[in-house]
Amino acid sequence: MEKTLIIPAADDFHVHLRQGDLLKNVVPLVISGGAARVMVMPNTTPPVYTSLDAADYKSELQKSAPQTEFLMTMYLKSTLTETEIKAAKNNGVLALKLYPKGVTTNSEEGVSGFEDLYPVFENMQEYGLVLSIHGELPYDTGQNICVMNAEEKFLPYLTKLHKDFPSLKIVLEHVSSKAAVDFIKNSGPEVAATITPHHLELTVDDWARNFHNYCKPVAKYPEDREALRQVVIEGNSKFFLGSDSAPHLKSKKDIAKPAAGIFTTPLLMVYLADTFDRLGCLDKLKDFSSTFGRTFYDLPENKKTIKLIKEEQVVPDEYNGIVPFRAGEILSFRIEVDV
Amino acid sequence: MEKTLIIPAADDFHVHLRQGDLLKNVVPLVISGGAARVMVMPNTTPPVYTSLDAADYKSELQKSAPQTEFLMTMYLKSTLTETEIKAAKNNGVLALKLYPKGVTTNSEEGVSGFEDLYPVFENMQEYGLVLSIHGELPYDTGQNICVMNAEEKFLPYLTKLHKDFPSLKIVLEHVSSKAAVDFIKNSGPEVAATITPHHLELTVDDWARNFHNYCKPVAKYPEDREALRQVVIEGNSKFFLGSDSAPHLKSKKDIAKPAAGIFTTPLLMVYLADTFDRLGCLDKLKDFSSTFGRTFYDLPENKKTIKLIKEEQVVPDEYNGIVPFRAGEILSFRIEVDV
Repeated sequence: MEKTLIIPAADDFHVHLRQGDLLKNVVPLVISGGAARVMVMPNTTPPVYTSLDAADYKSELQKSAPQTEFLMTMYLKSTLTETEIKAAKNNGVLALKLYPKGVTTNSEEGVSGFEDLYPVFENMQEYGLVLSIHGELPYDTGQNICVMNAEEKFLPYLTKLHKDFPSLKIVLEHVSSKAAVDFIKNSGPEVAATITPHHLELTVDDWARNFHNYCKPVAKYPEDREALRQVVIEGNSKFFLGSDSAPHLKSKKDIAKPAAGIFTTPLLMVYLADTFDRLGCLDKLKDFSSTFGRTFYDLPENKKTIKLIKEEQVVPDEYNGIVPFRAGEILSFRIEVDV
Repeated sequence: MEKTLIIPAADDFHVHLRQGDLLKNVVPLVISGGAARVMVMPNTTPPVYTSLDAADYKSELQKSAPQTEFLMTMYLKSTLTETEIKAAKNNGVLALKLYPKGVTTNSEEGVSGFEDLYPVFENMQEYGLVLSIHGELPYDTGQNICVMNAEEKFLPYLTKLHKDFPSLKIVLEHVSSKAAVDFIKNSGPEVAATITPHHLELTVDDWARNFHNYCKPVAKYPEDREALRQVVIEGNSKFFLGSDSAPHLKSKKDIAKPAAGIFTTPLLMVYLADTFDRLGCLDKLKDFSSTFGRTFYDLPENKKTIKLIKEEQVVPDEYNGIVPFRAGEILSFRIEVDV
C-alpha cells in the first residue's frame, strides 16, 4: 500500500548553519531535507549582534544555497537600543534570541531576573519582533537545577515575562518536557513553541546509551516525549517545526565529552514523515511543518512542494564528516524535492 | 595543617574484578586503594552460578592478590535448590545477587513479580544468606520507566519482599536516589544499602557532559546526591561502602555507546577521604568503610591498617588502559597501606 504525500516544502524555524567550511557543507543540505525556508540561529562566533551582522551572514548563506530562503535572527543583549531594534525590523530580522544565562532567583519576588531586558522587550513589542527563547535556567546544584529540570524550572520566569508583555510574541524553542507543553497550551495566543524531530523520538535512555543522541535541552522522561507526541497528534497550532539541527563534526562527538547537538537537516522531512506515520498522524504533518509556524510569524505559504513516498531507506553513516540522527537506521520514507 | 588518619583497611562490599588479563591487571590494585576485603560480584561470563564456580573464581582471584580477602557471591536464579543454597552457605558464599530483569507489574496486586523466587528467599532466610539487589526496574517507555526513575519505581517491590521475608537480610546496592535513601532509613534493621564513592560526587549533569561518569544506576538530581551525602555525614549505620568499581578498557568507554561503569578501585579510600573531608565528616569515614558493613555481614574488623595523609595528588590518566574516576583531577589525600 503506497502512501505518497505532496505538501509544501517545510519551514524550519530553528537551525544552526555554522560558518566557513562547515556552512558550505551543511547549507546545501537544507533543501534536500525538504525545507525551503529556515530561521537561522545567531550563536555564531562572534554572534550575530546587529542587523548588519545578520545581513552579512544572510548573504554568505545565500551564496551556498541560492534556492533557500533564510530568516534571520539576532542575539538578544540588554544594550540593544530602540534605534537598533527598529533597524533590525526594517532589515528583515524576525526574532531576537535569548539565552537566559544571567537569570537568578530573587528572593523578594520569587521570580525575577529579566528586569534589565525590559526596555528591549518594550521595543520588540512595539516594533513586532518575536522573542525566541532557549528556555532553561543555568544548572545550579545548590538549587537542584540540572539538565533534567532546567526547562521546567524556567517556566515561572516565562510566566512573569508573558504577563508583563502580553502582546510580545514569544517562541519557547525546542520544548522537551510535559511541563513546558502544558505551559504553552495554557498561555495566550502570542506564545508558541517549536518542537524538534528528535525530541519526538528520544528519551533520556536513548542518550544515556548513545551519546550521538545527546543534545540540549536533553531528551527527558517517556511521559515528556508522550506529551510532545500528543500535541502533534492532535494538531495543536501552538506547536510547530524548529529542528534545532546542529552539525558537529564526528571528531567532536565521538569523545568522552561530546558536543551537544543532533543533525537532522539532510533528512528533515523524512524523519518527520517516519515519526508521524508511526504515530498514526501523517495527515498532521503539513500543518506542523508548513502552516502553524508561518502563520505565527505572518509569512506566506512556500511555493515549492515536496513529495514524501513510503519507501524504505537507510540513514547514511555521515554527511561530510557529520553523523546524522538515527545513522544506520531504516526510515520508512524517501523524499523528492521540487528544486 | 596536616591531617593524618589511621584507620582499618576498608571493606568494599561491591566490586567487579572481571576475568583473565583484566582480572590480573585489576586485582592487585585493590590493596593499593586501601581495601583489604572485597565482596566480588558474580556477573562474570559465564556468571557464578554454583558454590563450585565461586570457589574456582576465588582461587583465581587469590592467585593475583594473596594478601586480599575475597568475599564471594552467587548469581540468584529461581532454580536454586535448598541443597545448593545450603552448600553455598557452607562454602563461605555470603550473598546471592539479584538482577530483577523479569519483574513486571501485576495489575491485581499492584506490586508483584518475585513469586517464583519465594522458595529461594525462604531458603536464604533459613540458612542466613544475604540478598544483594540491583534495585532497578527494567526500563519501559510505556510505563514511563527510564534510567532516572528505575530505582525509585523498584521500591514498592522491595517493600513487599521485605514484608514477606522480614528476617531475610537485604542490601540494596549502589543507592542513587533520595527515594531509596528514605526507604532504607524507614525499613527494619535487616535492610541496608551500599553507597559508591562516585554517587557521593556526581549528578546527571556530570555524566551528560563527560561520559566517563556514566554508570548504572545513573547519577541523578542534585537533591538525590544531597540525600546520600546526608546519611554519610550523619554516620547512619544502614549505609556502608560498596564501590561498584567497574573496570572497562578505555576502548569501551571512549565511544558513542560506552560501557556503563566507573573505576575507583586503585584510589578507593583516597577518593573517599577527599569527599568526606570536603563534606566536613572525615571522622565518619572509618565507620562507613570498615565498621557498618562488616557489622551487617557479621565479620571481624580488618587487622590491616591504612594511613591517609592530607597531601595533594593528581589522579593518573589510566591504569593499564582503564581510565579511573576523576582522571587528571587533584585529590587532597595520599594513602599508605600496611601490606
